[in-house]
Amino acid sequence: MPQSKNMSPIVLTIAGTDSSGGAGIQADLKTFAAHGCYGASVVAALTAQNTTGVQDVLPVPAAFVQKQMDSVFDDLEVKAIKTGMLFDASITKGVVESLKTRFTDKGVAQPPLICDPVCVSTSGHTLLQEHALEEMTSGLFPLATLITPNKSEAELLLKYSGTTMEITSLEDMLTSAEKLLSLGSKAVLVKGGHLESTMDDVTRIWEAHPEIRAIKQGLFDDNMEILLVGHPKYRTGPLVVDVLFSQGGEKVVLTRPKINSSSTHGTGCTLSSAIASELARGASLTDAVECATAYTHRGILAAEAIGSMLTLHLTTIYIPLADYTTRRSSTDPYPFTRMLIARTSQIWKQYVEHEFVKQLGKGVLNRTNFIYFIKQDYLYLKYYARAYGLLAAKSATFPEIQSATETILNVLHEIGNHTDYCAKFGISKQELESTPEATSTTAYGAYLIDVGLQGDVAKLVMAAMACLLGYGEVGLWLKKESQRPNSWVVMEGNPYKQWMDEYSGEMYQNAVRTGLETIEKLAAADPPSLVRFEEWRTVWERCTRLEKGFWDAAMNLN
Amino acid sequence: MPQSKNMSPIVLTIAGTDSSGGAGIQADLKTFAAHGCYGASVVAALTAQNTTGVQDVLPVPAAFVQKQMDSVFDDLEVKAIKTGMLFDASITKGVVESLKTRFTDKGVAQPPLICDPVCVSTSGHTLLQEHALEEMTSGLFPLATLITPNKSEAELLLKYSGTTMEITSLEDMLTSAEKLLSLGSKAVLVKGGHLESTMDDVTRIWEAHPEIRAIKQGLFDDNMEILLVGHPKYRTGPLVVDVLFSQGGEKVVLTRPKINSSSTHGTGCTLSSAIASELARGASLTDAVECATAYTHRGILAAEAIGSMLTLHLTTIYIPLADYTTRRSSTDPYPFTRMLIARTSQIWKQYVEHEFVKQLGKGVLNRTNFIYFIKQDYLYLKYYARAYGLLAAKSATFPEIQSATETILNVLHEIGNHTDYCAKFGISKQELESTPEATSTTAYGAYLIDVGLQGDVAKLVMAAMACLLGYGEVGLWLKKESQRPNSWVVMEGNPYKQWMDEYSGEMYQNAVRTGLETIEKLAAADPPSLVRFEEWRTVWERCTRLEKGFWDAAMNLN
Repeated sequence: MPQSKNMSPIVLTIAGTDSSGGAGIQADLKTFAAHGCYGASVVAALTAQNTTGVQDVLPVPAAFVQKQMDSVFDDLEVKAIKTGMLFDASITKGVVESLKTRFTDKGVAQPPLICDPVCVSTSGHTLLQEHALEEMTSGLFPLATLITPNKSEAELLLKYSGTTMEITSLEDMLTSAEKLLSLGSKAVLVKGGHLESTMDDVTRIWEAHPEIRAIKQGLFDDNMEILLVGHPKYRTGPLVVDVLFSQGGEKVVLTRPKINSSSTHGTGCTLSSAIASELARGASLTDAVECATAYTHRGILAAEAIGSMLTLHLTTIYIPLADYTTRRSSTDPYPFTRMLIARTSQIWKQYVEHEFVKQLGKGVLNRTNFIYFIKQDYLYLKYYARAYGLLAAKSATFPEIQSATETILNVLHEIGNHTDYCAKFGISKQELESTPEATSTTAYGAYLIDVGLQGDVAKLVMAAMACLLGYGEVGLWLKKESQRPNSWVVMEGNPYKQWMDEYSGEMYQNAVRTGLETIEKLAAADPPSLVRFEEWRTVWERCTRLEKGFWDAAMNLN
Repeated sequence: MPQSKNMSPIVLTIAGTDSSGGAGIQADLKTFAAHGCYGASVVAALTAQNTTGVQDVLPVPAAFVQKQMDSVFDDLEVKAIKTGMLFDASITKGVVESLKTRFTDKGVAQPPLICDPVCVSTSGHTLLQEHALEEMTSGLFPLATLITPNKSEAELLLKYSGTTMEITSLEDMLTSAEKLLSLGSKAVLVKGGHLESTMDDVTRIWEAHPEIRAIKQGLFDDNMEILLVGHPKYRTGPLVVDVLFSQGGEKVVLTRPKINSSSTHGTGCTLSSAIASELARGASLTDAVECATAYTHRGILAAEAIGSMLTLHLTTIYIPLADYTTRRSSTDPYPFTRMLIARTSQIWKQYVEHEFVKQLGKGVLNRTNFIYFIKQDYLYLKYYARAYGLLAAKSATFPEIQSATETILNVLHEIGNHTDYCAKFGISKQELESTPEATSTTAYGAYLIDVGLQGDVAKLVMAAMACLLGYGEVGLWLKKESQRPNSWVVMEGNPYKQWMDEYSGEMYQNAVRTGLETIEKLAAADPPSLVRFEEWRTVWERCTRLEKGFWDAAMNLN
């Protein structure tokens, strides 16, 4: 038997075909490929189909479906299985029998099985005859690791098993997931793509059910205020919510922005295939669902961005994975910066919400600590300005040279503020200049210069932007917190108000937006490989850590 | 009708399925995807199949094949079509009728059609019933842009049309291509994968038929001696030869190294799909065949390199295109360097076979010109050594720092040779040191330092390697030419023999091999995107041009 050693894991789809290539086993094979998996396929039914609908269906005799399964299982080491359109009772029964004979009856472990209970096409064509529901629920579900019904499939399955309900709210989704779980699969994912929810709905659910784990996908992570400036609808826009319940008792709700897109033909096939691929690669079920929903979401986004009238599959497979992270869209304007922040979220949060920042916001920070910080920041800015000089020297075009040079002028303006503060606190320009440089200042400053010497423009930009955007985020975090009712942030009479105003103010935030454009354009011009992305992320993380170290030093004076 | 504006061109396959995913429409869809095309598919027959053979075939009723074709053509703008396994006469007839009704009969231009006349599986299963041959040759071939038979398919088609012959030589392939062309397709590609040829066979054909265009793929290009050192079998090893004849009178023979691989299941499907994809993207037929044969060749190489027992498709789709160029194999030990040279071949040849080099080889080069060159080369080497100092400064690991430093020591040894020459020609160390630097020297030297300052390690390595490897190639070219009977290269009494010996000698060639390893490892560690590859190639080309400029200057003294 061919081994999967040194090669891609094998995933099997048992489903119908789509002659137009956007759904069915064609979508499955493309999804497996995009996940680095090798696809095998058993055809359960043929369709004459295109983007306008399903013109005809030709079921494959159950015996030939079983023959194909034999050919695959006799030879290939299948790591995961997904089933899609099985069309009628005899095919469904044949699939169940073949799986039982080969695995359960022999006491051999069955590969994880994702059952996408495809019943009706978007265009209204029946893809599962009603008398097949018995085979599916009592035969296939008990073999399944996960079933993935959408709203109408969930309603149909519930009706068949004796519960008539319409799913119209998040509460209904939770109820339906609970009931569907009793049909025997190890887990249920009720997909909410056909519903529309809001952050208020989600918050209500989370508050009422503390046992439910929340997975937020997209712009809803913490400390991404800089990405939301000027885009208020990202905070309040409609959401898609999926509900994942398992026999083990795990309850998860996944949320992400809803995309108004017509590129959703084949979405269900893609999602279940992506889950199967992730499982084949060794992921846990929750991780697999989280990655697969994000993958499908990006696919729809990418299709939308290209303006395709066809399906998400026109784009998903042809765009290298790295490219997703650089494809800007109406619901994800800064995808690359978002990923940098998301992939360094722990240290980023420690930095943004640092004790120094909190005391500053409360107005209780010791003057000594602030003066220490301002003096060191003044010295640091000399390195920072020099780094932009190095960036100008490394640039290939006049606009790049101009942009680097303008930043140096901005820094010269910023040090004006520093001398102002110091004057206020009775510190002369001369004293400021003669301040001994702290180790944390040298570390951060010299690191900037070293990155600039060692790497290319991209690496230096990552370092400089981590610094620029970080202060922007701190400024906006304090501002956002100050606007809460009974906020802990004090503005009136706060000796550090000018500092807070500066970094949340228009001028600095304009520089932040220019910085965001710089990062996104740089990443989009040549989407980095995983190796290169990791190099960039490492620089970003290192700078964030050095920023934090800067404030640690300012807090721990003796 | 969905437009192909802003999106991938649509390619349609009409063929059988392969449940194990290595051949048939599964291989076709993977190949379309790898070429950035969107795949639509019409299933003509189902197989229960795996890597050990075809267990069963279920033909699809001709009427349902036609229904699928209607669904596709009614909705999608198909840019190219390929047909594979059509199994029986009624299906073949149905496909011909549908194409005629939709295109020819209506006076609408038919998309290019590649007909892969699949007849028998590798394992011996009949994939085209004999009574279907009439429909195929008289119905489908006249609609085809190209037919792509292998040895046994060509023999079967010829036998059916009245010529019994066994194809055992290149001459037989030419004859069979001529005869098959008379069956009505616009062109014929007779595939030689089941034959084995040698460079002698190919040379014999080219000498006897000057009208035949030669396309050499792989290591057979000019000025790649450095890549062949220590690998004599690449010069004499077995070759695969394909023959392409068209009604327009074009005759092409394509050669490339034969790979001993078991990963050839699905090769034919892949090749015809790759040709269709290239045509859909706008390539000419010859270019399409050249790219597609190279693509399939790389796929087999990659499969072999991974050690897969399965088919080339386990690997082709999952490896980004850039990765192919970095995947070393037994028949392609330096794929990345080979591509750098191949993509800069014109300037590379002008440099390696420069008039300066030729006069030096003949021993007729004016002493003044040589002395000028040696003095300037001496000055250049100072920049070159400094560039490695910069490389050490930019390095991230001790071995990288060591390697850069050792090169500086090698350069210091090389300048010893320069002072020796000069002493021989009566030039003192002092005179050498005080030589004014020529513009061509400053241009090349300062360019090295600038690349080192501006870019990352990879860019600097490209610049340094272009110089190191270029002299190695010049040395080997002169050596190779000197070994021809009645060579124009003079060794006895040639005043420049020491120079020639040095660059073709063991010590310098060892440095060349270390350099080759450096490039290949660097490229393989993080295969570059197309954008990045183009940046690297530009540096390589610029250095080669500056090297040539160096010799131009030495030849054009006043």
